[in-house]
Formats: sequence, C-alpha cells, structure tokens
Amino acid sequence: MPSISIKGKNMPESPIRKLVPYAENAKKRGIEVFHLNIGQPDIKTPDCALQAIKNNTVEVLAYSRSEGSEVYRSKIADYYSKNNINVTANEIIVTTGGSEALLFAMGSITDPGDEIIIPEPFYANYNGFSIASGVNIVPVISKIEDNFALPAISEFEKLITPKTKAILICNPGNPTGYLYSKEEIEKLAEIVKKHDLYLIADEVYREFVYDNVQHQSVLSGFGLENHAIIIDSVSKRYSMCGARIGCLVSKNKDVINTALKFAQARLSPPTFAQIASEAALETPQSYFDEVTVEYKQRRDILVNELQKIDGVKVANPKGAFYCVAELPVDNADKFAQWLLEDFNIDNKTVMVAPAAGFYSTKGIGTNQVRIAYVLKKEDLITSVAILKAAIKKYNAN
Amino acid sequence: MPSISIKGKNMPESPIRKLVPYAENAKKRGIEVFHLNIGQPDIKTPDCALQAIKNNTVEVLAYSRSEGSEVYRSKIADYYSKNNINVTANEIIVTTGGSEALLFAMGSITDPGDEIIIPEPFYANYNGFSIASGVNIVPVISKIEDNFALPAISEFEKLITPKTKAILICNPGNPTGYLYSKEEIEKLAEIVKKHDLYLIADEVYREFVYDNVQHQSVLSGFGLENHAIIIDSVSKRYSMCGARIGCLVSKNKDVINTALKFAQARLSPPTFAQIASEAALETPQSYFDEVTVEYKQRRDILVNELQKIDGVKVANPKGAFYCVAELPVDNADKFAQWLLEDFNIDNKTVMVAPAAGFYSTKGIGTNQVRIAYVLKKEDLITSVAILKAAIKKYNAN
Ligand SMILES: Cc1ncc(COP(=O)(O)O)c(C=O)c1O
Ligand SMILES: Cc1ncc(COP(=O)(O)O)c(C=O)c1O
Repeated sequence: MPSISIKGKNMPESPIRKLVPYAENAKKRGIEVFHLNIGQPDIKTPDCALQAIKNNTVEVLAYSRSEGSEVYRSKIADYYSKNNINVTANEIIVTTGGSEALLFAMGSITDPGDEIIIPEPFYANYNGFSIASGVNIVPVISKIEDNFALPAISEFEKLITPKTKAILICNPGNPTGYLYSKEEIEKLAEIVKKHDLYLIADEVYREFVYDNVQHQSVLSGFGLENHAIIIDSVSKRYSMCGARIGCLVSKNKDVINTALKFAQARLSPPTFAQIASEAALETPQSYFDEVTVEYKQRRDILVNELQKIDGVKVANPKGAFYCVAELPVDNADKFAQWLLEDFNIDNKTVMVAPAAGFYSTKGIGTNQVRIAYVLKKEDLITSVAILKAAIKKYNAN
Repeated sequence: MPSISIKGKNMPESPIRKLVPYAENAKKRGIEVFHLNIGQPDIKTPDCALQAIKNNTVEVLAYSRSEGSEVYRSKIADYYSKNNINVTANEIIVTTGGSEALLFAMGSITDPGDEIIIPEPFYANYNGFSIASGVNIVPVISKIEDNFALPAISEFEKLITPKTKAILICNPGNPTGYLYSKEEIEKLAEIVKKHDLYLIADEVYREFVYDNVQHQSVLSGFGLENHAIIIDSVSKRYSMCGARIGCLVSKNKDVINTALKFAQARLSPPTFAQIASEAALETPQSYFDEVTVEYKQRRDILVNELQKIDGVKVANPKGAFYCVAELPVDNADKFAQWLLEDFNIDNKTVMVAPAAGFYSTKGIGTNQVRIAYVLKKEDLITSVAILKAAIKKYNAN
C-alpha cells in the first residue's frame, strides 16, 4: 500500500464536521437541530445577483482570465474606493473564494518552515491552509476577558524570528466577532514595518459591523502599501457562499505578480460565479442596512440571553456574526456531542462549534464554544433556552 | 520591503501567457490572430447544462458539501460505471476543476522534497502545482519520433528513489495527443505495484479519442485499487472550462479521506457550476459523436497540412485536441514571438505555444510547438498556410 503524506496526516479535520454524523443521527431520530455551528447565513442572496445568472447569455462557458475578468476587477476597485481603500484593478486578483486567496497569499510569501503569527482563537481553516503550504502558525493568545482585543504588541514581538513572514489578522474576527480599532491597526502597522513583515488582513466580514463603529481596513491610510495583503470574499457580504468568489488585494507588485502565477496554474476562477458577483456589486444599500439591523438584533438577543445563564461568559462581538462563549462545562467537545446524542427539549436541540478547534495552543478554549447567529430571532431564543436547560442537566449527570 | 517566497519565485509563468502581450499588440495593429495556442474549445456547451443554470431556483447560494453534492457524486459514479470504471459516490471528491484535483492529489501523497515521475512533454501546469506543493518532478523523455509513446519501463525504473511517490500520466496526452495502449497501462500497473507507488492518471480528455481505439482508464481492470488516482474534469468534455468543476477519484480510502481534509479546508466547490455539471451528464450521445467527428476531421486536416511543409515533423495524435510539431526553425520561442510581431499574410497570423514550456528537461523541445486544433476547419487550413509561408520567410531572414 503506498503511503499518505505527513502533510496529509497533519491536515486537521474540520472542528465542526466531526459532529456532523451525530447531527445526522439526531435528525434521523426526528429531532430538530438548530445549527449555531456554521457560518452559512440564512439571508437571501441579492436578487440582482440571482437574476444576472438567470439572464446570462453564455454559449461557450469559457475560462476567464486567471486574474478575473477585467470588467469585474475594475468594478471591485470602485467598490473599494467607496470603502476608503484606494486600489486599481491591477492590484486585485479574483480567487475561488477567500479560501484560495489565503492559499495564494501563503504560497507567495512563505516557504516550508516559515512562520506566520496569528492571534488566537482564529478561523480554523487557517490551520489547513498553513499545513498545505508547509507554514507554521505561531499563535498569540487573545483572551475572552478582554473581549478578544489585540494582545499587547510586546507579545507579538517576543514571537518574531528570522522565519516570521507575516502577521495574519481577521477583522472583524471569526470566531471572536472582535473589531480592531484604528489604534490597534496602527500598532500592527508599526511592527510589520519595523520587522519587514507582511500584514495579511482577512476582511471578509468588513460589512458586518454594529454599534456605528467604523471598520478599519489595513489599506485605509496606515502606510502599508508594501506590507498589506487583503483577503476578501463575496461569500458572506452577499450571502453567496456557494459562488466561490473572493479576491486577494495588494499594492505590493511583487505579491500581485507572484500570486498571479499561482492563479495562472489553476487557470481561472468560476465564470458563472463571476457574473453573479459582478452583478452583486449593484446590491442596493438598503439590503445591507436591513442585514445589519437584523444581525445586530440577533447579536443583542443572543448575548443577552447567554449572559442570563449562570456561569456563562460571553465576549460581546462588534462585527461578523459569531460569538465565543465560555460554558460551565468540563469539556465543550463532549458537551456538543452530548447535545446531539442525549439531549432534547420537545424534540429540539442545538449544534454548536467547540472552540478548541479555533485555538492552535493545545488545552485552551476547551470549555468555549463558537455560536453563529445565523438563525432567525425566535430560533435564537429557543436555542439559548435549550442550551440553558442542557447545561443544567449535563452538570447534574 | 518584505520578501517573496522562493516557491513564488520558482513558480513558472505560463508558457503561453508570455506571448499574450504580443498577440494583443498584433490585434491593436488590426491583425487577426488565429489562436492555436490554447486548450479553449470553440464547441458550444450542451444546452441541458446552460438551461439548468437559467432554470435554477437558488434563493440562498449556500456552500455545498466539501466533497460535492451527494446527488451529483452518485450521478458521476453512474457515468463512470457506463465507462467501465466501477466506483461509488464515496470514492469521488468534486473539485474546482481538474486543477484542484491535481493539487489535492499531490498534497495527499507527497511532502516537500518528494518526487513524481512524469513522461515529458507534459501539461505545463504540472510544474506550477508541483512547485506549490514542494514536489520535484522527475521527467522521463518521450520522443516525437515514437509519436510520444510510453518510454521503456526500464527508463522509469532507473529514476525511482526512496523519495518517489507516484508516476503521473496524462491519457490522452496534453500536449502530445498520445493515447496509452492496454499494454502500456499494464506495464505501468506492474511497476507501481512493485515499488508501492501511486499512479495518477489525468484523464480529462477521456472522451476525445479517434480512430475507434478504446480509452484505457487506470481503474478499468488493472488491479490498481490501492494505487490509482484519477484526475477528471468537465472542462473539455462538455466545453465547460469556465465552470471549474472536476473530480478526484480513488478506491484507496486513505487517499479519499486525506483529500477530503484538503477539500474541507476550502469549504466547497462552486454551486452553480455543480448544477450545470450535473445537468451536463444528461448530454445526449449525439453531442459527443458530433464533437468527435469534428475533432477527427480537424486533426486529419491539421496533420495532413503540416506534413506537407518541408522539414516539419508531426506526431499523429490519437486523442485530445493537441499535436506537437517540430519546426525547421532555430528556436520556437523566438519564432512564435516573431509570428505575432513581424509577420502576417493579408493581416492574418497565428499564435502557437512553444513546446519548451511542456518539457522539464532544459534544452529539449526548443524547436517544437504545440498546436491546439480548437478552430474551424477553414481556419485551420488558413493557419497552416500562414505557418508554411512564415517558416520560409523566417528562415530567409
Ligand atoms: C474568516 C474567514 N475567512 C475566510 C473564509 C473563507 O470563505 P470563502 O472561501 O467562502 O470566501 C471564511 C469562511 O467562513 C471565514 O470565516
Ligand atoms: C491535461 C490537463 N489536465 C488538467 C487540466 C485542468 O483543467 P481544469 O482545471 O479546467 O479542469 C487541463 C486543462 O487544460 C489539462 O489540459
């Protein structure tokens, strides 16, 4: 039998998917499962995007340019300039989701054995992309007590070695919902300039910001022209996760030229999805306003209800649509599985994502869960009620 | 200025794209360029696929399963069983093009520094995927004089080291058009079993086979259940290059489970494209019959016309829609550029792909070109006439 790669063995299984068979079994037993575990919004995709697909006039479904169609990229540049990010079409490479943009960024700036510093907890798939790229993630711990704010810069500085190539942040954060302030980005800008590092900013949740705070992009006036790489995506912005369109943005020509070679090897991003994504740029502001109001209400309900449960600690998210909560249970992994296997109220239960998968340091976050507020308000209320009763019963066992 | 990765520096530029600016300039000067350089067919995408997109009822464009939708995979399994390849839905992972299947295969079975043996000339992007994966390609030369048949097995055996993980073949071949015989696959089966290697077979051109010869899949009865990995794609089969759907197929559970982890990290293949690809499986046989007749006629015209040119050597392709020709010029790279910059007949010229980019060994294939017969017959005749006059003029300079 030929062997599997070490890389392949080390590739993590998705922290969420491990629970999928238990959820499927629960459903087979007639139990309704509220999915608080995934970042798949229930929001309708904008009509303009769906209509563009229905009205498409493609006859030969051909490869597009590797970097994405000229017209689409120039429209993305317009979108950015409206968002106080000044980039041209040539500073954008359209990718197959933000996922591929992350892979291209890592491939362009790191070689096997190089290091990227990431505040943890972080989006779990950064692990997979790092292992696939041969890169070591060096975590710097952010704490639930601080609402997951940026760790002290001295903590980053301690971790920088000759192998460090970049700091990667997610802003607003998945799973934390944390939104970095102008001062925090300034501090990061200083340290990456001082140590000649890249600052990769995963800004796929840019639009999901509450409480009238302004999102701070790394390309909005921090002097990071040579250092910043933005990862972006249509997945969440327009509830178009299945399109698989994102982009990599940089004003550093070497980065763009290198990422372009990775893009050329895989030929092109999907054509239908580019048609939908280009049309999605015409989504009226009212759509986003409604979505923001909806998510803000959901967040408020979720956080309020969670805070009412004895022993639960919640970080109040300022953006994205996730929150991390610390539960009074011995082990969130076991608890999440138990919720699906052994618990229900009126044949209803909830599925949450154990947070340990979002940490790279072993042994921390083991009693935390990530809750995505991607469900209707009533369902969120029911879900938290289920959680409350479940915690009580679980601890009484 | 932060640095670019060694990997990124080593990523090849596409051998075709280097010439694109010259082609664009030619067009600006009013010259019609016949594109013999790319594998983008002019054939219409099947109606059933295009209609499925127009009639889609998606409201929330959600992520699909990472391995591709259940229904689509079971329909692919049916397609395979009709093609004498017995696999189940669980032995298939739907990927974003054959390109991503190649990346997943390499990631699953190789670590940096490992080796894959590939008969050259080979599909140029194998270089890019190998560099991205940290793998070294070890070429074994196949010769135009032999029509690019499989090199002697002893040549492979000489190259096997403890780092060798796989042999990769493309069948039918891009750029050679060569179709491996049953005996050749048997020999490969023997050597991979003897040395415990994988046999990766890129069968994306499976349907493009002429002269009533049968395509031999590595999963059609060679006892390669543990060894074979098939790379497949809808791109060429249904003229759906822009869909970006392919798949990785293996009966080796370790391979599938490992590739699935790579698939989960990038979340899912494109949803609209899966809808189109699922519908494309209903394409009537008459579509393929017409396409095969058309390509066969194109091939015959192309090869016949090329053979009439003094000093041109052509390998007669038995499959795919490419052929490699050796031209009586000093350097095919320079010649291809000169065709675009300095030559035209009645304001028409041709663009060909210099074949050196399809070889990994430096200095061979330098007077060869790859010609894709993806144009109408009349245009192919005109193109070869242009080539003939161009060779004469180029050599008279
Ligand atoms: C923080 C973050 N980055 C990137 C992605 C990748 O998304 P996609 O590939 O769909 O653009 C996600 C998806 O959940 C995410 O949460
Ligand atoms: C031999 C071969 N393999 C794989 C591919 C990748 O195609 P895709 O990613 O469009 O499926 C191509 C495309 O030209 C090819 O010629």
